[in-house]
Amino acid sequence: MPSEASMKAVLQAYLDNFNAGNLDGLTGLFADDAIVEDPVGAPAHNGKAEIRAFYEDAMKNGAILSLSAPIRGSHGNAAAMAFEAKVGPLTIRIVDVMTFNAAGKITSMKAYFGPEDFIQV
Amino acid sequence: MPSEASMKAVLQAYLDNFNAGNLDGLTGLFADDAIVEDPVGAPAHNGKAEIRAFYEDAMKNGAILSLSAPIRGSHGNAAAMAFEAKVGPLTIRIVDVMTFNAAGKITSMKAYFGPEDFIQV
Repeated sequence: MPSEASMKAVLQAYLDNFNAGNLDGLTGLFADDAIVEDPVGAPAHNGKAEIRAFYEDAMKNGAILSLSAPIRGSHGNAAAMAFEAKVGPLTIRIVDVMTFNAAGKITSMKAYFGPEDFIQV
Repeated sequence: MPSEASMKAVLQAYLDNFNAGNLDGLTGLFADDAIVEDPVGAPAHNGKAEIRAFYEDAMKNGAILSLSAPIRGSHGNAAAMAFEAKVGPLTIRIVDVMTFNAAGKITSMKAYFGPEDFIQV
């Protein structure tokens, strides 16, 4: 199981790579067979090729991600964070939960936000 | 599937009932066969009797819970929130994820916090 600090560092790297438009850096955080459900309730993206395509699209929106509160760890192989995605005048309020393999790669990501979490500011 | 607003209302009621020491109100939010994993990585509490005993114990600490950011919904049967539990000079940073049945009762709760999320302020 990766350390709590290393899982939190991956969540921070996720935000940083997304904001930098670094698609290789971002997808490199995931295990080859990872599953991304973003948002929870929508069909999942399975495996690195689908995940890369998903983030390539997502980055085109020019969203900037910022933490709403410090990243949380767990007593298991998971970590979570509340953050906001700002796209122009729109803010989306999100909680991400990620699980990890022994090598410290993300094995699953679930993004919790609903239609009412889109805020016009 | 319960509405996003009703799931968020249950998460708020969870905080409010906990802070009020209302054990009946709190456990009434859960389905009879709910599972509580608090924290993630520790053995789960299965079913309402175990859940009630868990919260009866937890309330004895006199923790006060407060949101770190607005509650998030999802496009499925889940909602999530980042919050803090203050116990005297200690603050625990937590993300809770809850899932719901069609009747709007909590079927699972997972609390994400690790040893490094205990902050002395």
